[in-house]
Amino acid sequence: MRYGNPSIAEGLESLRADGCTQISVISLYPQYSASTTASVNDEVFRCLLKMRWQPALRTAGPWHDHPSYIDALTKSVKKHISKLDWKPDYLIASFHGLPVAYFEKGDPYHCHCAKTARLLREKLGMSEDNFKLTFQSRFGPSKWLEPYTETTLRELGEAGYKNIAVITPGFISDCVETLEEIAIEARETFIEAGGENFTTVPCLNSSPESVKLLAQLAHAELAGWIA
Amino acid sequence: MRYGNPSIAEGLESLRADGCTQISVISLYPQYSASTTASVNDEVFRCLLKMRWQPALRTAGPWHDHPSYIDALTKSVKKHISKLDWKPDYLIASFHGLPVAYFEKGDPYHCHCAKTARLLREKLGMSEDNFKLTFQSRFGPSKWLEPYTETTLRELGEAGYKNIAVITPGFISDCVETLEEIAIEARETFIEAGGENFTTVPCLNSSPESVKLLAQLAHAELAGWIA
Repeated sequence: MRYGNPSIAEGLESLRADGCTQISVISLYPQYSASTTASVNDEVFRCLLKMRWQPALRTAGPWHDHPSYIDALTKSVKKHISKLDWKPDYLIASFHGLPVAYFEKGDPYHCHCAKTARLLREKLGMSEDNFKLTFQSRFGPSKWLEPYTETTLRELGEAGYKNIAVITPGFISDCVETLEEIAIEARETFIEAGGENFTTVPCLNSSPESVKLLAQLAHAELAGWIA
Repeated sequence: MRYGNPSIAEGLESLRADGCTQISVISLYPQYSASTTASVNDEVFRCLLKMRWQPALRTAGPWHDHPSYIDALTKSVKKHISKLDWKPDYLIASFHGLPVAYFEKGDPYHCHCAKTARLLREKLGMSEDNFKLTFQSRFGPSKWLEPYTETTLRELGEAGYKNIAVITPGFISDCVETLEEIAIEARETFIEAGGENFTTVPCLNSSPESVKLLAQLAHAELAGWIA
């Protein structure tokens, strides 16, 4: 894990100690940014720079538009909504934000998020009237990618929307940014602004669709290494 | 080039500027060492660490025992010797040396050189009686991998060997270490020690066998990236 345990360094050292001479690294961030995919790759590079006997390395590119990823997200929305006793009239796709300065320096993250959101919306058969891409987790005083998730939820509540669902496609697994920031804090914001029903679509986590997606990514990366 | 122009940094920046999102790096050092293959990879890692929008990366492992490499070396020996008006009674496979300290720290370079030499010898149908693996280009006061090429040539000359050929399998292209250190200096050593005929087998350079080998390495590395 980039910021958890076991660390990337521990994982690589362990594989190397087991005799692995070929290592494939697939970042679980679907959308590329200097602070997502590249942050993982950078840590891998720093680890390999210290190894006397380096493995051959493959780093995966972004997979924000992989058909199985879009398919898994679509199914997760449908499955979750089918279990509710109310029907959302608006879906928000909320991604972790970034300082606008990154975007202006050429970081493709915003474009990748926009493409993921568009493909998901199209696959769900929704229009832009009841679907919106937003950015959460702003930190510090600088300007981040907009629209902000919290601001959007407040505006929708104040505009009279009563039933909202939020999906967080940039997080492969549920974490504090989804379980607390969206499912608790964002819900409060929406309800306080006049909303009535709020639901958070779970991340892909260990769903069959998620496992299928990861297996496809791995097989593509291992081409030529395994039969 | 690791120590020439265009530099690795220039090559990577140029590919990136052309829009390449997937870059394969194949070190032209066949035998892995911290100072050969890893030195190339390290420089690639350092360059990518500075890139905001990194390409997906693949680094190739060593190819010291690739059948087409051994085949190309074998053919280069046979072709070169067929053009001589004398017949070598001894073949030396001379590789760039390394401090013994590297070997003792676990660097596989010595093993890779030994395997390349053995496979070449077997493919040529030669015995250990008239074939020897040696190491050249020692630099500085520390102990390097032995036997040293120069010492071996002196001993063979003094022992009465008259006709010797030297091949330098670790260098894909002829360079100062082959054209000067072997073809001029090592020749002088052998002749001064009593030898009569000395020849240097050219490196693979741009021979058809060399191009075929590099194409095979590239195709293997690009599996899944190109059809």
